[in-house]
Amino acid sequence: MIILEREEARPMTAKNMQVLLNSRPSGWVQEGDFRIVETEIPAPGDGQVLVRSLFLSLDPYMRGRMNDAKSYATPVPIGGVMEGETVSEVVQSNNARFKAGDIVVCRTGWQQYAVSDGTGMRKVDPKAVPLTTYLGVVGMPGVTAWIGLLDIGQPKEGETVVVAAATGAVGGVVGQIAKLKGCRAVGIAGGKAKCDYAVKELGFDACVDYRDGHLYDALAAATPKGIDVYFENVGGEILDTVLRRLNANARIPLCGLISQYNATDPYGVKNIASLLVNRVKLEGFIVSDRMQRWPVALPELAGWVASGKIKYRETITEGLEKAPKAFIGLLKGENFGKQLVKTA
Amino acid sequence: MIILEREEARPMTAKNMQVLLNSRPSGWVQEGDFRIVETEIPAPGDGQVLVRSLFLSLDPYMRGRMNDAKSYATPVPIGGVMEGETVSEVVQSNNARFKAGDIVVCRTGWQQYAVSDGTGMRKVDPKAVPLTTYLGVVGMPGVTAWIGLLDIGQPKEGETVVVAAATGAVGGVVGQIAKLKGCRAVGIAGGKAKCDYAVKELGFDACVDYRDGHLYDALAAATPKGIDVYFENVGGEILDTVLRRLNANARIPLCGLISQYNATDPYGVKNIASLLVNRVKLEGFIVSDRMQRWPVALPELAGWVASGKIKYRETITEGLEKAPKAFIGLLKGENFGKQLVKTA
Repeated sequence: MIILEREEARPMTAKNMQVLLNSRPSGWVQEGDFRIVETEIPAPGDGQVLVRSLFLSLDPYMRGRMNDAKSYATPVPIGGVMEGETVSEVVQSNNARFKAGDIVVCRTGWQQYAVSDGTGMRKVDPKAVPLTTYLGVVGMPGVTAWIGLLDIGQPKEGETVVVAAATGAVGGVVGQIAKLKGCRAVGIAGGKAKCDYAVKELGFDACVDYRDGHLYDALAAATPKGIDVYFENVGGEILDTVLRRLNANARIPLCGLISQYNATDPYGVKNIASLLVNRVKLEGFIVSDRMQRWPVALPELAGWVASGKIKYRETITEGLEKAPKAFIGLLKGENFGKQLVKTA
Repeated sequence: MIILEREEARPMTAKNMQVLLNSRPSGWVQEGDFRIVETEIPAPGDGQVLVRSLFLSLDPYMRGRMNDAKSYATPVPIGGVMEGETVSEVVQSNNARFKAGDIVVCRTGWQQYAVSDGTGMRKVDPKAVPLTTYLGVVGMPGVTAWIGLLDIGQPKEGETVVVAAATGAVGGVVGQIAKLKGCRAVGIAGGKAKCDYAVKELGFDACVDYRDGHLYDALAAATPKGIDVYFENVGGEILDTVLRRLNANARIPLCGLISQYNATDPYGVKNIASLLVNRVKLEGFIVSDRMQRWPVALPELAGWVASGKIKYRETITEGLEKAPKAFIGLLKGENFGKQLVKTA
């Protein structure tokens, strides 16, 4: 039988570890909201490929997929494999576009093996840049920074760009592109180590520690000419404070609100009047809505990484079974740079 | 002496009543924040004109001018004449562009007479439309509605447009233009009389009474397909509620926040996440930043008024000395339609 032949071609000893959504969190995510199972490795059908995950990307947007609320994407069903992007290796291919050994970026989720018909799967060059960067600076987070800052924020030379979560996978790229464009780059991050890294390694002009208890004063000192672009991925009190420093005609690319994702009672933003008196353009965006910009952004980002103009840092957790704990840490800001899970 | 000759040419018996800013309000404006004085009627110098105010426009933005805070315009100084737009008659002219008897729209403020070098003063045709409309539907409020809705809101046929303060000078025009563009127009207003007027006279498809205590449910019933454009001029709880009904790719022209102008503790807006998940474009705007659009908007508005396609309502207070009380009423929503003061 054809199916048996295909099964024989798969790795015989392995199982497929999967992380499932076990329950919808109320407030902060708990490890018990996930369930780890082992299943048989699936067999690729006609036109399909079997891939083995090498690295899984953990990203704040995944918190939204755990909710049942209306959002821009369908929630993960209870008992479903958690969604996510991976760098994977093609193990077996019944699809002319791929061959065994190809390295691909794909949305196969929190599991070790998956089959796919190749939709949305793209081959990457493992020699051009380190594999993990395809999930970071040369992947979705990098393109998010590029599109949000350049297409929406439209910074001009000499302007001041502020980004929160400044050492995160997105924020670090935002600040470095701002510098490449001749702007003053000011970060906001949690703790002295992250702030030091933003300034000394990533080249930010200043970085404000929001845990220090003097956010407005520190931000005012770091932005003597006010703020022209605020790349927003945090929300809450930080947003409210930044609003007080906006210049006329400021732009706010609204990319994320990580401080609010686990809030049962969201923070009430008071300084909305700043958006009016300063004639601010605020625009919420989702990077997957703008696929036509990826082919422009990705080569530019890869070039900057290859030439050392954009630096990055990663936190790599070993073992898929540790993904739930690492994800909770990400939501709490315990990671440093791009959070990945080594899955093989 | 030339100056004496000019003084002789002015009306001899009259004085110039002026309303001055007496103190900066803390919270709600009080009548005592204004001071009424009588001064000599000024004499026009070379190149100047003397105008006599016929109607003064009262508008929510004036509340901001009473504060000392950073805003898009310079505050009125303590002891200064309150700023505002008037329809005035040229009494005496030393300026070749104007002659006695001309009717002009100008920013001569809360006073009966003023001299001007003609900057920003524009002649209007008293026969084309009623004089008062040059301060309303065929003036700044009408252009505000036109620019905010059409240039920023960009409504498409079949979409749902929501506007608060729906029977106000701006809101009423927003809803009627939305109907002219083939949209569903839904108003929010305070009280049954205003809501009835919006639907029966202005042609809104529905109007929600925010004083009724069931704002979200009523708004949901009135917007079964969600909200594509929210023309914002109120803020606070109404904004927070509207955010819950936004569709993907909604637009919010942010024109005003009247509910917050007298607040010492601004309302905290909680549903900011809607701006992200729905990829909303929110843009604060000031109509005087966009003077290049006025020559396009004004003739279109005048045409709609002349042909009866746009209706309007006015509250005309008689006597400049009553302007402070009328202005406080405007901020509380006690007026109905465009608030004017008959100053002569």
